[in-house]
Amino acid sequence: MSNWNVYLSGEIHTDWRDRIMEGAKALGLPVTFSAPVTDHDASDDCGTVILGDENSKFWYDHKGAKVNAIRTRTLMEKADIVVVRFGDKYKQWNAAFDAGYASALGKSLIVLHDPSLTHPLKEVDAAALAVAETSEQVVDILKYVIQGRLDR
Amino acid sequence: MSNWNVYLSGEIHTDWRDRIMEGAKALGLPVTFSAPVTDHDASDDCGTVILGDENSKFWYDHKGAKVNAIRTRTLMEKADIVVVRFGDKYKQWNAAFDAGYASALGKSLIVLHDPSLTHPLKEVDAAALAVAETSEQVVDILKYVIQGRLDR
Amino acid sequence: MSNWNVYLSGEIHTDWRDRIMEGAKALGLPVTFSAPVTDHDASDDCGTVILGDENSKFWYDHKGAKVNAIRTRTLMEKADIVVVRFGDKYKQWNAAFDAGYASALGKSLIVLHDPSLTHPLKEVDAAALAVAETSEQVVDILKYVIQGRLDR
Amino acid sequence: MSNWNVYLSGEIHTDWRDRIMEGAKALGLPVTFSAPVTDHDASDDCGTVILGDENSKFWYDHKGAKVNAIRTRTLMEKADIVVVRFGDKYKQWNAAFDAGYASALGKSLIVLHDPSLTHPLKEVDAAALAVAETSEQVVDILKYVIQGRLDR
Amino acid sequence: MSNWNVYLSGEIHTDWRDRIMEGAKALGLPVTFSAPVTDHDASDDCGTVILGDENSKFWYDHKGAKVNAIRTRTLMEKADIVVVRFGDKYKQWNAAFDAGYASALGKSLIVLHDPSLTHPLKEVDAAALAVAETSEQVVDILKYVIQGRLDR
Amino acid sequence: MSNWNVYLSGEIHTDWRDRIMEGAKALGLPVTFSAPVTDHDASDDCGTVILGDENSKFWYDHKGAKVNAIRTRTLMEKADIVVVRFGDKYKQWNAAFDAGYASALGKSLIVLHDPSLTHPLKEVDAAALAVAETSEQVVDILKYVIQGRLDR
Amino acid sequence: MSNWNVYLSGEIHTDWRDRIMEGAKALGLPVTFSAPVTDHDASDDCGTVILGDENSKFWYDHKGAKVNAIRTRTLMEKADIVVVRFGDKYKQWNAAFDAGYASALGKSLIVLHDPSLTHPLKEVDAAALAVAETSEQVVDILKYVIQGRLDR
Amino acid sequence: MSNWNVYLSGEIHTDWRDRIMEGAKALGLPVTFSAPVTDHDASDDCGTVILGDENSKFWYDHKGAKVNAIRTRTLMEKADIVVVRFGDKYKQWNAAFDAGYASALGKSLIVLHDPSLTHPLKEVDAAALAVAETSEQVVDILKYVIQGRLDR
Repeated sequence: MSNWNVYLSGEIHTDWRDRIMEGAKALGLPVTFSAPVTDHDASDDCGTVILGDENSKFWYDHKGAKVNAIRTRTLMEKADIVVVRFGDKYKQWNAAFDAGYASALGKSLIVLHDPSLTHPLKEVDAAALAVAETSEQVVDILKYVIQGRLDR
Repeated sequence: MSNWNVYLSGEIHTDWRDRIMEGAKALGLPVTFSAPVTDHDASDDCGTVILGDENSKFWYDHKGAKVNAIRTRTLMEKADIVVVRFGDKYKQWNAAFDAGYASALGKSLIVLHDPSLTHPLKEVDAAALAVAETSEQVVDILKYVIQGRLDR
Repeated sequence: MSNWNVYLSGEIHTDWRDRIMEGAKALGLPVTFSAPVTDHDASDDCGTVILGDENSKFWYDHKGAKVNAIRTRTLMEKADIVVVRFGDKYKQWNAAFDAGYASALGKSLIVLHDPSLTHPLKEVDAAALAVAETSEQVVDILKYVIQGRLDR
Repeated sequence: MSNWNVYLSGEIHTDWRDRIMEGAKALGLPVTFSAPVTDHDASDDCGTVILGDENSKFWYDHKGAKVNAIRTRTLMEKADIVVVRFGDKYKQWNAAFDAGYASALGKSLIVLHDPSLTHPLKEVDAAALAVAETSEQVVDILKYVIQGRLDR
Repeated sequence: MSNWNVYLSGEIHTDWRDRIMEGAKALGLPVTFSAPVTDHDASDDCGTVILGDENSKFWYDHKGAKVNAIRTRTLMEKADIVVVRFGDKYKQWNAAFDAGYASALGKSLIVLHDPSLTHPLKEVDAAALAVAETSEQVVDILKYVIQGRLDR
Repeated sequence: MSNWNVYLSGEIHTDWRDRIMEGAKALGLPVTFSAPVTDHDASDDCGTVILGDENSKFWYDHKGAKVNAIRTRTLMEKADIVVVRFGDKYKQWNAAFDAGYASALGKSLIVLHDPSLTHPLKEVDAAALAVAETSEQVVDILKYVIQGRLDR
Repeated sequence: MSNWNVYLSGEIHTDWRDRIMEGAKALGLPVTFSAPVTDHDASDDCGTVILGDENSKFWYDHKGAKVNAIRTRTLMEKADIVVVRFGDKYKQWNAAFDAGYASALGKSLIVLHDPSLTHPLKEVDAAALAVAETSEQVVDILKYVIQGRLDR
Repeated sequence: MSNWNVYLSGEIHTDWRDRIMEGAKALGLPVTFSAPVTDHDASDDCGTVILGDENSKFWYDHKGAKVNAIRTRTLMEKADIVVVRFGDKYKQWNAAFDAGYASALGKSLIVLHDPSLTHPLKEVDAAALAVAETSEQVVDILKYVIQGRLDR
């Protein structure tokens, strides 16, 4: 397989994606990464900025969420592996939604979170093939499953 | 269609399920309701009580979450409609996971939550065919889609 | 096969459904018929009556269309045969949408319309296993495919 | 994802496709566009010109519609995004059929039409992830979902 | 499993279906049998008798074949087992078509034919889970796979 | 859900199936159990006894294995839960094959084996939602996931 | 869409494939053609030549047919369009099997045969999007559906 | 078809994979081979080395088996052909699991084993399109199905 598609879902306020992408690049792994739009304001406002304003907060959010879904669902469906990161802030229901969506599509799911979140994430973790605590562990998994080499 | 299967996912600490089931029963709707195990302690402990204890919290939770998944995934796959309720307590990532899972399976999704949760639930709502605020609205939807009658 | 599910989509302003259902009943055919909500006003208003009013016409329609979709998609997915009727009034894009939806699901599609509509319906007819002009022909098809008897 | 496949279905008598394709090209978006045959006469006559004439109008149309379906279904199945345009002329049932077909295949659907058509298109719009009024908005959506950048 | 659905495709000029159905009935096997319309004339003429005559032989046949397909595809999709019988007369391409169709759907395929037809049927046989020479063998297979009992 | 279908695959030389079926019956669980043919000789000989003898051991086995597959695949596809038991004798590759087959179909998989087999079964266990050591644990799981009650 | 995959199934004793491939090449159409092995003897003997001889004619044929199926099913599943040619010799049940298989996979099916075969092929033709009489017509269809240009 | 993907599952202690890959390379066959990680120790330890140690042997194995599944399932799903090799050592339940998994996905399955293993592998062989005894036979099959040429 010449190339692996890896979708990086979830938390958008830390550099966890960059660390995975840089780690994979440093190793020369044949991975094409994709992700939701990680510019929080753009993600919130895309629906109304492009398609026209809304008075109601509900429809404001609705329009944006659907435009974002064009990107996220297309990319998740193309992915071989979906990594979902949960942080310590915000509700992050979209991250859990993505995990459920990826799981029903039969994607290989890797969940990335601090051990303090183990209990509330137990159903999500139960659907995963790996539960990591750090971006570096995700890079190590990618290295191992793609190259077949294990550093000790 | 003689019977509709409706799965009631999410919050387990209020009586929202009972109100939907009683409402549907009062109307004589041909609905078979199903749900996850709503006994919180049973749901947490089922894995280790049945299959043997674990020292590690992670595996304790993991075993239980997987046993619960036997029930939840089977019932969701049989469902025509999946209703997911979000309340104001707990992380409820399993509810959002179920919403994503149901969505990828192509189920008709109804989300039930207070308007105060609109923004963090926007991606989940965007995948739904109806966003309700009360159990009574869910009953009204079931009545309408099953019987085709609309009370004004 | 003990029972056939037949979904009757499209035009809601003539008695074509009744004539099919009565014809099938008179013959004792083991068919369970289903259909969208055929009360035009209920169909238009269901979203806002149940889930709350909308100022914008777009969202007013949107809410209703989605609530109706809970019914129509569930019933189409359960159907063995989908009959779609086109009349001489209204745009009827929802009927054509249903025909496309049913076709992609691999349902047996029967289209029912006057010969005067042949040209604009050619793509829809091309996806059908039968193109009928009268409700009585649809009854004859159901009789033939279910009982295997052909009256001459 | 190196390339996006976008299928442009519907109205063939205005330049809406050109404007989308030129807009995407000007932005350097990695999109491969596809579309039905937009030469109206060729589309009507292809069946009989290639496979032999027909006396009956019905079969004349039927042959052509099926030859066109070889193109349209293949291209829709390859598409990541299906854009369907409704104009103010003709019945356009094939456009609505394509929208239903794309929706059942799980494609990301964008509907493009004037607000005056909102009511008759409400079921089609309800299945879409975006409802646009102009080709420029479609380009903006493509730009946003592909590049993740939002111009204000 | 309380009931098995068995579809009997192919040759319509001998009593092979009756012998299987009677054999299964005598054993009290819980099988619901289905089959194409086996009245040759009805099968040929159903399209035009119901939907109107055709001058062209091609479209005469075409209409009939499609009406028959409403029955055959619906019943094959419901079947657990598809038995296809090849005799020594006629082209029987519809039987081979059904075998290919059933095979791609993942149905358990049993082929029934005289050993003299082994060579031209080798691709069909290769897709089958059993190749029988007599109706009685098919009954024995049904008895064994349903009841788990083997008479010697 | 009125009834659960549970397929019991694997070892045929101990009474593990009986203990599960009796346990479920004693609890009044709404389960329909199914299983491969557990009469070893019948299972080995069914192909040639029914369809004619073979000189070659390979084809002797081949015919029988395919006849058995009519039963096993049909029943597995109908199952909600597939339980696979590994004992301490024989190669049991068919049990592992069934586990892989069930897993790819998305069935809920329960694996039942002695802890001494943990290492060679690690890939099979990794695909399971529960790994049990005794038939009684399987009954407890069925009771819990069906009735939602947990005995401590 | 940069490239189309077209599988050419059926008759192997005339030059119909060459004429299609040469015609497409002369037009510069972006088509990758594939086909079964058309060397009749190789196709018959491949199983035993590679995997060892068989005394029984049935298993001789069986081994070969299955090895050929590795090629034919893989290539059909990759195809966008499946063309099936029926000639005037041999039983050609494998061609009809391929047509049924392709049809159940949802491939665009083109059937190529002399009008004298219309009646026995009516079920196969009914599943097709085009029924051609000459290789040149198939080339014309490919040209039209790929380039969108119709020569008159 | 420009390239074939072939996954080589099963035994990791002999050079059977190398012989297939070298044979295919010598013939210039357009095949991309993939395989599980064949370093036994890496395969056993990958879970804990990357994601943290475990006291329990069960979870030690479980973590590793799931990380390996990210690789094996992704590669099997991309494969056109899955070859599964059984040797004379170890339980090899993972090989049989892969065979079942590949079979349910509809992959072309080739099983490679010594004739002495025919009886215990009969169910696996029954699902295969070819049963080979040597790596050279697998190369011959690949050569034949890809190039269409049969050496005698």
